[in-house]
Amino acid sequence: MSEKITFLGLGNLGTPIAESLVKAGFELTVWNRTKSKADSLAALGAKVVEDPLEAITPGGIVFSVLADDAALEEIFSLELIEKLGEGGIHVSMSTIAPETARQLAKIHSWSKVHYVAAPIFARPEAVVAKVGNICVSGNPEARERVKPILQTFVRGIYDFGDDPGAANVVKLAGNFMIAASLEMMGEAFTMAEKNGISRQSIYEMLTQTLFAAPIFQNYGKIVAQQVYEPVAFRLPLGLKDINLTLKTALDVHVPMPMADLIRNRFISAIAKGRDNLDWGALAQGASDDAGL
Amino acid sequence: MSEKITFLGLGNLGTPIAESLVKAGFELTVWNRTKSKADSLAALGAKVVEDPLEAITPGGIVFSVLADDAALEEIFSLELIEKLGEGGIHVSMSTIAPETARQLAKIHSWSKVHYVAAPIFARPEAVVAKVGNICVSGNPEARERVKPILQTFVRGIYDFGDDPGAANVVKLAGNFMIAASLEMMGEAFTMAEKNGISRQSIYEMLTQTLFAAPIFQNYGKIVAQQVYEPVAFRLPLGLKDINLTLKTALDVHVPMPMADLIRNRFISAIAKGRDNLDWGALAQGASDDAGL
Repeated sequence: MSEKITFLGLGNLGTPIAESLVKAGFELTVWNRTKSKADSLAALGAKVVEDPLEAITPGGIVFSVLADDAALEEIFSLELIEKLGEGGIHVSMSTIAPETARQLAKIHSWSKVHYVAAPIFARPEAVVAKVGNICVSGNPEARERVKPILQTFVRGIYDFGDDPGAANVVKLAGNFMIAASLEMMGEAFTMAEKNGISRQSIYEMLTQTLFAAPIFQNYGKIVAQQVYEPVAFRLPLGLKDINLTLKTALDVHVPMPMADLIRNRFISAIAKGRDNLDWGALAQGASDDAGL
Repeated sequence: MSEKITFLGLGNLGTPIAESLVKAGFELTVWNRTKSKADSLAALGAKVVEDPLEAITPGGIVFSVLADDAALEEIFSLELIEKLGEGGIHVSMSTIAPETARQLAKIHSWSKVHYVAAPIFARPEAVVAKVGNICVSGNPEARERVKPILQTFVRGIYDFGDDPGAANVVKLAGNFMIAASLEMMGEAFTMAEKNGISRQSIYEMLTQTLFAAPIFQNYGKIVAQQVYEPVAFRLPLGLKDINLTLKTALDVHVPMPMADLIRNRFISAIAKGRDNLDWGALAQGASDDAGL
């Protein structure tokens, strides 16, 4: 693979993605706010730089996997976008508001840079196993140029067209549905438990039959066993995403009562000191309410 | 198969189950309130009788698939149970309150009749294809005696032990989760739609990946296309089940805010004249609220 890639953001998800790209043969230049997190990438042969601006190659491809809208807007300064310049592509993988994506795409276009939204559905272990799924949207030629790169580390690529906000709408909808599934199982398993049925046995029945999907099998195990560590996705990130969902829904005037309920569960979980647990701990609210 | 079976209740679900039993070689005596519904069974060789009492063989096996708790309690009179008598088994497949099942089991035991709860997860076409799943609970010897019969028309049998109420708790939990999935998809697809994304494309992405389970694939199609006919499970039956869920949860003091939300969606759907549609029409509430 001859394409040179700049990679910004080496968190839980960014690190395995960057590692996959290096292993696939791409020449990577990486940057992370906490530089020590780049050690594993350096060991694999990636070039580590001190400053995001320094990491940019004019006309190149830049991947970003950053914490939130604010981090993305801060790092993608006008100066950085200008340096990336004509022919440059920004593959933006963070889960952010669709409106932020649309705004950023417009700002990128001032410097003839293409913005491709590419949020991924994958826990870190799924990235390593190359079983994640990615949604893409944005400029059509840029989408086609980055797809072969994405193909090296995901299972499925789902194309949502030219609107740079579209992929993030789908990502937020999916994350809302995961969180709603947690609450749903929390309530159902708690009703079963207080009727003398083990959480494990109702979990097994439902996730081997009607709900035989990865989300229910993987998160259902967490909800059944009520063990919320190790942390793959920290609970406050779930609140961040449901807030983005509700903001996006508000912008287009779509009431989402189930998302409202989920948001309150997240707020309560944080109030109870569960902010360092996996977001599966959302489901604990149903047990608390039932006096367990 | 030498076992003689009495079959009470030939509705949407009862009919294909009874037909499967005849085809598996069992000698069936059937009864239904509206006798003409038994015509297809008669053609297959089942004996059709005018009165449930007449259908009973002392010490035999009786299957019931009736509309609700009241119909079951009315038909299983003390006289009928006494006639069924010692060695008799009642395989009760209706979705009813766990408390009703426990109460009926006690009344049956006065005449030394065993009550086995056996609610099934299957739409009529799934019964025909023998891909349904059944939950059983109740007397242990009776459970073992009926399992080979159940195996002739389902894919999976899930055993929840001796409590005659347990299988119905799991059934209600499952139906609640299906209804919650409808609402979840209704909200998510509507948010996508008002962002210019087709309901079909978000449906396909999510149900080919994270939510690749029968419930999401089958009902998701209905929610994506917003076509609620033909009717496999009439919407008011969904309200009946969510009311049973909430009653069961109340009995053991488990608040279920998501089930409350679903209940209100059902009430509203009926208020809007959707009582003759499939319960997938629950999801239409999110579109209505969004002014679509």
